[in-house]
Amino acid sequence: MSKLNQVVTEIVEEMRAREDRGIVASYIPELGRVDPQNFGMTVIDAEGSLYSGGDCETPFSIQSISKVFTLTLALGKIGERLWERVGREPSGSPFNSIVQLEAEQGIPRNPFINAGAIAVTDVILSGSQPREALGEIIRFMQFLADDSSIIIDHTVAASEQQHRYRNSALANYMKSYGVLKNDVEKTLGVYFHHCAIAMSCRQLAMAARFLAHAGLNPATGCSIVIPDRARRINAVMLTCGHYDGSGEFAYRVGLPGKSGVGGGILAVAPGLASIAVWSPGLDAAGNSHLGRIALERLSQRMGWSIFGP
Amino acid sequence: MSKLNQVVTEIVEEMRAREDRGIVASYIPELGRVDPQNFGMTVIDAEGSLYSGGDCETPFSIQSISKVFTLTLALGKIGERLWERVGREPSGSPFNSIVQLEAEQGIPRNPFINAGAIAVTDVILSGSQPREALGEIIRFMQFLADDSSIIIDHTVAASEQQHRYRNSALANYMKSYGVLKNDVEKTLGVYFHHCAIAMSCRQLAMAARFLAHAGLNPATGCSIVIPDRARRINAVMLTCGHYDGSGEFAYRVGLPGKSGVGGGILAVAPGLASIAVWSPGLDAAGNSHLGRIALERLSQRMGWSIFGP
Amino acid sequence: MSKLNQVVTEIVEEMRAREDRGIVASYIPELGRVDPQNFGMTVIDAEGSLYSGGDCETPFSIQSISKVFTLTLALGKIGERLWERVGREPSGSPFNSIVQLEAEQGIPRNPFINAGAIAVTDVILSGSQPREALGEIIRFMQFLADDSSIIIDHTVAASEQQHRYRNSALANYMKSYGVLKNDVEKTLGVYFHHCAIAMSCRQLAMAARFLAHAGLNPATGCSIVIPDRARRINAVMLTCGHYDGSGEFAYRVGLPGKSGVGGGILAVAPGLASIAVWSPGLDAAGNSHLGRIALERLSQRMGWSIFGP
Amino acid sequence: MSKLNQVVTEIVEEMRAREDRGIVASYIPELGRVDPQNFGMTVIDAEGSLYSGGDCETPFSIQSISKVFTLTLALGKIGERLWERVGREPSGSPFNSIVQLEAEQGIPRNPFINAGAIAVTDVILSGSQPREALGEIIRFMQFLADDSSIIIDHTVAASEQQHRYRNSALANYMKSYGVLKNDVEKTLGVYFHHCAIAMSCRQLAMAARFLAHAGLNPATGCSIVIPDRARRINAVMLTCGHYDGSGEFAYRVGLPGKSGVGGGILAVAPGLASIAVWSPGLDAAGNSHLGRIALERLSQRMGWSIFGP
Repeated sequence: MSKLNQVVTEIVEEMRAREDRGIVASYIPELGRVDPQNFGMTVIDAEGSLYSGGDCETPFSIQSISKVFTLTLALGKIGERLWERVGREPSGSPFNSIVQLEAEQGIPRNPFINAGAIAVTDVILSGSQPREALGEIIRFMQFLADDSSIIIDHTVAASEQQHRYRNSALANYMKSYGVLKNDVEKTLGVYFHHCAIAMSCRQLAMAARFLAHAGLNPATGCSIVIPDRARRINAVMLTCGHYDGSGEFAYRVGLPGKSGVGGGILAVAPGLASIAVWSPGLDAAGNSHLGRIALERLSQRMGWSIFGP
Repeated sequence: MSKLNQVVTEIVEEMRAREDRGIVASYIPELGRVDPQNFGMTVIDAEGSLYSGGDCETPFSIQSISKVFTLTLALGKIGERLWERVGREPSGSPFNSIVQLEAEQGIPRNPFINAGAIAVTDVILSGSQPREALGEIIRFMQFLADDSSIIIDHTVAASEQQHRYRNSALANYMKSYGVLKNDVEKTLGVYFHHCAIAMSCRQLAMAARFLAHAGLNPATGCSIVIPDRARRINAVMLTCGHYDGSGEFAYRVGLPGKSGVGGGILAVAPGLASIAVWSPGLDAAGNSHLGRIALERLSQRMGWSIFGP
Repeated sequence: MSKLNQVVTEIVEEMRAREDRGIVASYIPELGRVDPQNFGMTVIDAEGSLYSGGDCETPFSIQSISKVFTLTLALGKIGERLWERVGREPSGSPFNSIVQLEAEQGIPRNPFINAGAIAVTDVILSGSQPREALGEIIRFMQFLADDSSIIIDHTVAASEQQHRYRNSALANYMKSYGVLKNDVEKTLGVYFHHCAIAMSCRQLAMAARFLAHAGLNPATGCSIVIPDRARRINAVMLTCGHYDGSGEFAYRVGLPGKSGVGGGILAVAPGLASIAVWSPGLDAAGNSHLGRIALERLSQRMGWSIFGP
Repeated sequence: MSKLNQVVTEIVEEMRAREDRGIVASYIPELGRVDPQNFGMTVIDAEGSLYSGGDCETPFSIQSISKVFTLTLALGKIGERLWERVGREPSGSPFNSIVQLEAEQGIPRNPFINAGAIAVTDVILSGSQPREALGEIIRFMQFLADDSSIIIDHTVAASEQQHRYRNSALANYMKSYGVLKNDVEKTLGVYFHHCAIAMSCRQLAMAARFLAHAGLNPATGCSIVIPDRARRINAVMLTCGHYDGSGEFAYRVGLPGKSGVGGGILAVAPGLASIAVWSPGLDAAGNSHLGRIALERLSQRMGWSIFGP
């Protein structure tokens, strides 16, 4: 599959050279210090071959990308009953809007806006201690990526905790409607910590293989989720994965994906490949500027759009 | 391809027998009079074979499904500049909400909510007379479906015009921001008439072949749009095609689609098939109740979801 | 009452000299052409004495001030049943917002935002012809002001009609909920024309005497409305008379009042005086900049605030 | 002033006999247990004479009525700079809405909605310890009412603290915009405690004398605030004192007032009287049902409306 090799190489080369790099998130100093010149990319095809380039081994803060994996865990715990506590419609609002919550009785629109991800975290916590819940999440990531070196960046987590007020507002608001079942501070603690997991492009692309391959780990044949669930998680990524830029991402890239303010984007070409890109500068909608462009290139050149040949 | 034949036959049989049929739209008497027992379905595969069942030859009011074709026409006229006058993000609001317009200076969220479709119609009208614009639209439909018998139901159009106030509000609101360029009444006249086009499942599935096949009419090899545009229209259908039920449709069916309050749904399995179903009863989000279930069955049994095998 | 004489004289002098004059409304050319140097003021006390200064005899476009008088007329026609079609709570939104209408089923918040004033006009029209309704309104104004020279500025009315889209949106929206009973165009026609009435400060202060004096014309002793109704109209002016600046006006001036984008403000010192000021430049909330300051001076120096000695 | 005596007696009699008593607030058990048959009223005229009836000596939870006094304290501390942190416009929204905060960068609309009162409490706290701030508030109330027996009901405060989530959401939201300066929990603690002050009608009417009399305590001649400030606090009460029922209260009662969910209403007839009523049952807008009716009767029969004779 030398075409994919060449395509990845050329994209990495182009992206490293571009001068329009977006704006690095700076609401916490740990993110603000990251060098915008970083660019990494890893693609893993159905045979398990890796095509990588750039800073693909540098761990970065995966932030909201963790929400794909907590959604998977929560669906594993309580199945479709999850949807009684969080919707699955695009929100039409910025990631941290509280307006929608007021209109819909504290039920967040989808599991990828902040409020929804906090509700999903609350399901995972479910009466246990934050330490146990976090252990479960991090072991799940390590298992999926087949890499026990994945860890939480506690400096980032502490910084998120310090700047927690908007998320505290969302969590307390949901709690007032009974949507959260645990102590607000405990749920938020777990949430801030799983958003602070640090992973490289390679690790992320590894972890997402099951979404590209009908719920199976293609290397081991081991089933992570049933095929239907993998498809459905991909569907939620497609409609809701990029906040208020989800329509734009579908229109330009044509792949299910999930972005994080750390500059990472996870994407899935169903049946074909799992993909991770990282470039810290963000666009106006809060998604990685070059990451999105790189994925658009990849999708076009490989003909991977789910919307047609 | 006898499997598809059997699947369609079984779905039609199941749907005709079900008792949960949703609620027929009644805001105009012409729609309210349609028998909820109707159910029709047509699937056209890449070879051009038709698999049909039920009331697949009965014309019904396509309503909002027409917006897929007016979007195609408007993109043909002014290309990507269209997106200066209408967005392409899911709205997170009911189909006729005016709140979003106020927040975003009169620019409708996407071409499939009412406001967006009116803005698209305004682009098509573009200084010509309503009669000419309507002629252009109807000839486009006839050409795509290879069927010159497609017509506008003028009784439906007149009734829509009589109950026009909500749409008049949307149109005048956009006009106040300069988003509409033509006389409000003329644009609305064309809009009401193209929504009143009557087509059968067979005709609709024929007309949508180009969206399933990279912009080509597979029967003639004739290019309707470039492949990229076909993909992008499919992407907009996936994220915005079912109003506030778009996430649900993606989650359950996994195919780009567009519904209308007449009970029709157009769907596309990229590279594989174009599909039309019709069942007049609607669900709470205003989409055909059995139509959606039929498409969910079809997608599952044929493995056609764009989100994975 | 030489103190009032001196106070008015000094205020007029100060206002004519000030350089901060606000911004003249320019959404129609007829308003935009008015000289911002104009300043006029008339106060009529309980004995019927007039205290005037500046351009108090120059007619200007009363615009939204007309809504006080149409409210009076509509209450005369259908009494408290009016409040089934329009609320009487402050809106917390700009004058032409449509968001509130969507949240409250087409019932406008109060009779002084545009939507509410259109609903009130619809009550006055009530099946008759626009010409008759307008005749009734203008004769009412002439009667109240004891001045048959008051007329509608038809150039202004025509210009408003030409820039009607936002108001058309509001009217059609209410019509879609059945809040308007007449033809939308007819109601809007009457609305645009009564907003285009031209009056001087003297005429306005004359017309408002009944609001200051328990519903009576103090010159003739003739009852216009019962005392309770005069109080209630004053209450609506206090809470809703200045759009999103109503709280500010109550806080600073402490008198019931109603402003118009033509730069006029009508105010009432209950039991004491009716007041009209005019200065065409507006502040950020759309109320006459110097008009408000002049009334603040008057209220303070005369000790007329309704909120305490 | 025997007329006032008779009017109060008759109102109390009528109110105690009425069967429509509204619904007692039940979001915390302490409020829910209060007997809806309670009705008390005290009027204090300019001479300092008390006219009381019913359960006018029974302490009840003053709840939001405390916000009038914390506003007075905060204005005393930082003067008009307070308005940089809270607006003074009616909100057009229910008392605990968070939507407005999102639209206006965390600045609450006015000091009487929950968010605004929390911001005001934050000003009073201002770096000191909650215990000190509470001591200051309670001593201010005791001083104003000339009654050292006024205390905080700590059971109510604890219960409010337990059901704090909606208010926590508001406070954290404002904190995220920097509108709150202190620790969120500390500010909320002070807020919950001052809302839990228990007072009788007599005590409340005593405490509010300065608002009726140009900022002076009429008994001692001692100045609490300058006349201008008393007027302005009255103005804010008139426009914002009853949440989404402020327009209604102005329309029917015509006096500045502030209600609490404990069923109390404080009202001011400027220059004439301070008034407190208590009836625990609330109307749909959350204001005391019979309390409002009693004040309407009083205002009408005494001719006290600020909107005219």
